[in-house]
Amino acid sequence: MRTYDIIRKKRDGGELSEAEIKAFIDGYVSGEIPDYQAAALCMAIYFRGMSVEETTALTFAIRDSGERLDFSDIEGLRVDKHSTGGVGDKTSLIVAPIVATLGVKVAKMSGRGLGHTGGTIDKLESIEGFCTDLPIAKFKKIVNEVGIAIVGQNASLAPADKLLYALRDVTATVDSLPLIVSSIMGKKLAADDDCIVLDVKTGSGSFMKTLDDSRKLAELMVAIGKRAGKKMRALITDMDRPLGNAIGNSLEVVEAIETLRGKGPADLVELCVALAAHILCLADKGSYEECEKAAREAIASGKALKTLADMVEAQGGNKEWIYNPENFPKAKYSFAVKAKTDGYITGVDTEGYGVASLLLGAGRNTKDDEIDMAAGIYLCTKTGDFVHCGDTLAWLYSEKESAFAAAEKRLLEATRISDVAPEKKPLILDIFE
Amino acid sequence: MRTYDIIRKKRDGGELSEAEIKAFIDGYVSGEIPDYQAAALCMAIYFRGMSVEETTALTFAIRDSGERLDFSDIEGLRVDKHSTGGVGDKTSLIVAPIVATLGVKVAKMSGRGLGHTGGTIDKLESIEGFCTDLPIAKFKKIVNEVGIAIVGQNASLAPADKLLYALRDVTATVDSLPLIVSSIMGKKLAADDDCIVLDVKTGSGSFMKTLDDSRKLAELMVAIGKRAGKKMRALITDMDRPLGNAIGNSLEVVEAIETLRGKGPADLVELCVALAAHILCLADKGSYEECEKAAREAIASGKALKTLADMVEAQGGNKEWIYNPENFPKAKYSFAVKAKTDGYITGVDTEGYGVASLLLGAGRNTKDDEIDMAAGIYLCTKTGDFVHCGDTLAWLYSEKESAFAAAEKRLLEATRISDVAPEKKPLILDIFE
Repeated sequence: MRTYDIIRKKRDGGELSEAEIKAFIDGYVSGEIPDYQAAALCMAIYFRGMSVEETTALTFAIRDSGERLDFSDIEGLRVDKHSTGGVGDKTSLIVAPIVATLGVKVAKMSGRGLGHTGGTIDKLESIEGFCTDLPIAKFKKIVNEVGIAIVGQNASLAPADKLLYALRDVTATVDSLPLIVSSIMGKKLAADDDCIVLDVKTGSGSFMKTLDDSRKLAELMVAIGKRAGKKMRALITDMDRPLGNAIGNSLEVVEAIETLRGKGPADLVELCVALAAHILCLADKGSYEECEKAAREAIASGKALKTLADMVEAQGGNKEWIYNPENFPKAKYSFAVKAKTDGYITGVDTEGYGVASLLLGAGRNTKDDEIDMAAGIYLCTKTGDFVHCGDTLAWLYSEKESAFAAAEKRLLEATRISDVAPEKKPLILDIFE
Repeated sequence: MRTYDIIRKKRDGGELSEAEIKAFIDGYVSGEIPDYQAAALCMAIYFRGMSVEETTALTFAIRDSGERLDFSDIEGLRVDKHSTGGVGDKTSLIVAPIVATLGVKVAKMSGRGLGHTGGTIDKLESIEGFCTDLPIAKFKKIVNEVGIAIVGQNASLAPADKLLYALRDVTATVDSLPLIVSSIMGKKLAADDDCIVLDVKTGSGSFMKTLDDSRKLAELMVAIGKRAGKKMRALITDMDRPLGNAIGNSLEVVEAIETLRGKGPADLVELCVALAAHILCLADKGSYEECEKAAREAIASGKALKTLADMVEAQGGNKEWIYNPENFPKAKYSFAVKAKTDGYITGVDTEGYGVASLLLGAGRNTKDDEIDMAAGIYLCTKTGDFVHCGDTLAWLYSEKESAFAAAEKRLLEATRISDVAPEKKPLILDIFE
């Protein structure tokens, strides 16, 4: 089987066999197939697409390209929750402790942020002492004892995805449904969970800009997860508004803590309770209504907050910061962004908010950039609110006072203000199971 | 200008600007743009095509990627004749001496063969002592004195083409009209000729399998050549039959000599006279009829043969071999391929003939393979002929007796025999100017 023939077959609209796809992925990971042939194939896939069978084969080949985890010595049902990435998305920090409190196990591997999107691992590292790199035995022990542990992605998991993603990123082949699906699911399936709940973001700050594309993505990921024997569910959620009020690492951890203390912003609480209820429901913990009630009680009772604190302690972090979030260091400088006009906030380009946060120091332009943990944005107004000229729209935080001008400009450009009040859109737009 | 944005623009069907195309080619040649980005762009071009303006810009960027020749110290009009490549195509060895005899200058750079197609430079090197690598000053001096010199392609000419061609060859992006056109014309325009006559082959043994595609190729090359200020003409000629009877290096040189002695096979004579007449016509040497008559006289008078012999001598070759071609060494072994059935030869897969010749040792699989100069095929029958079972279809020649079985098989597979006589097709199918 020549690599050339595989590229040519896809170029000409043919359907690649499982063996051809596996040979390609294995050859690419081993270095026998060079980047330029992989780039040509990715572009041919961009134009020709892939059938469900091809996408499944590609997902499984990526899953099998490295080590596969064995969680069989973790007791009870294991669940994973995955978000396709967004701005200000701290739901994992809230949902995972809730469901762990209610008896399902969360052995979670998370990513770091890159560009305008944040990463759970970076956020957790804003807690003093918190270690995201644990030996696998200790990781499993914590999951068994506390119900939850969150570590960084294992480099030996799905190496094909790392190679392909880096290549797609520089060859304009990111926006391809089969390539997105196989990238997300290849990684997820290399871990050893029983249930996977996906939060598929739709709108300006996400991979998928239209609801229709997001539905296709959700449907395909659910189908492939089921083929791999997983219990699957996907929610499509709106990313045309940031989630909660905080964007930036320690700012988001503090907001997650506030939410677990019962004082979270309404939209964030709504989505977290829904995600938790779907996970619990999938894990046979009762009807959706019962699971939703249990999730709310886990917050109200303070038990979910205790689970988070216990996990932080088990992973070497200072649990006092969870109970007293005023311990998190504050940024050296702050700056109020004022509205330049009267009107309703009709919508927000969340990608622009993400870039503003990046400019303040909260994110990375390249993999090696250092993060300013206290930098970011706190929104005082949200989509649907009426603002007067001169009202504070948001507070910016940074160690670099010089960053405020560019971040303010970006934030104002990304905020749409109009005389007419916007229609109210639900936060959860669709559910696939 | 980011490379990513150029790839993405083409991927999305946009028209690249001259500046974008030039930045890409220059960056690729300098090594700043890696192969994988070039591969992704080539595949995007494969799917999206290019406008005439884009193809022109790409051609000119390839032309300008290295040294450009200056032939202004060669006296008189300079012409070049280029074939898009075929099997048994020795027309350059015949046409160039004819037109040089009649007062136009031929300062020709030719390629080596690769795969199933031969190269003029390899053929000339079958002549004892013939040197295809001359200092540029000596090359021009010979052109001025003899009217003609033929050397190998200068490595510093159009380096972008060499890089791109090698990449396209392994990424299934060869069959793209704008990429083919810019590759051929980029190289041609880096030389300094006044007139270019193109022999665009159509059919099984060529780049372009259909007449329609060949017409598009011819039309586009003529248009771009004119934009570069050249006088242009293109003939579309049939490659569903080999040209003449000989395939293989010294076999083809001997057939070219025989043709210049007035004893060539009819199809080869017809095409060579037509190509010569078109070149002379383009160089204002009279009407087409006058030029055709002059070309035939240059053969009949022996003057064209003398021009070839003079060039061979000037380039260090043994001119006695031109006057007495029995000097060319013969292959150690020969083998007669017999017809297995009665019938008309209705057509030939010339690519299969080229591969058979390659198997006998006449070509290269990789750039570093050595060529057996005496190896090849001599056809005893041609398309349209009626053969009886047991008749000799062709003689095979090689230094390796073991090669005959595979070459015979390939040749028989590539020869279509049927009860019904084929329709007679003209050799020259169309002319663009």
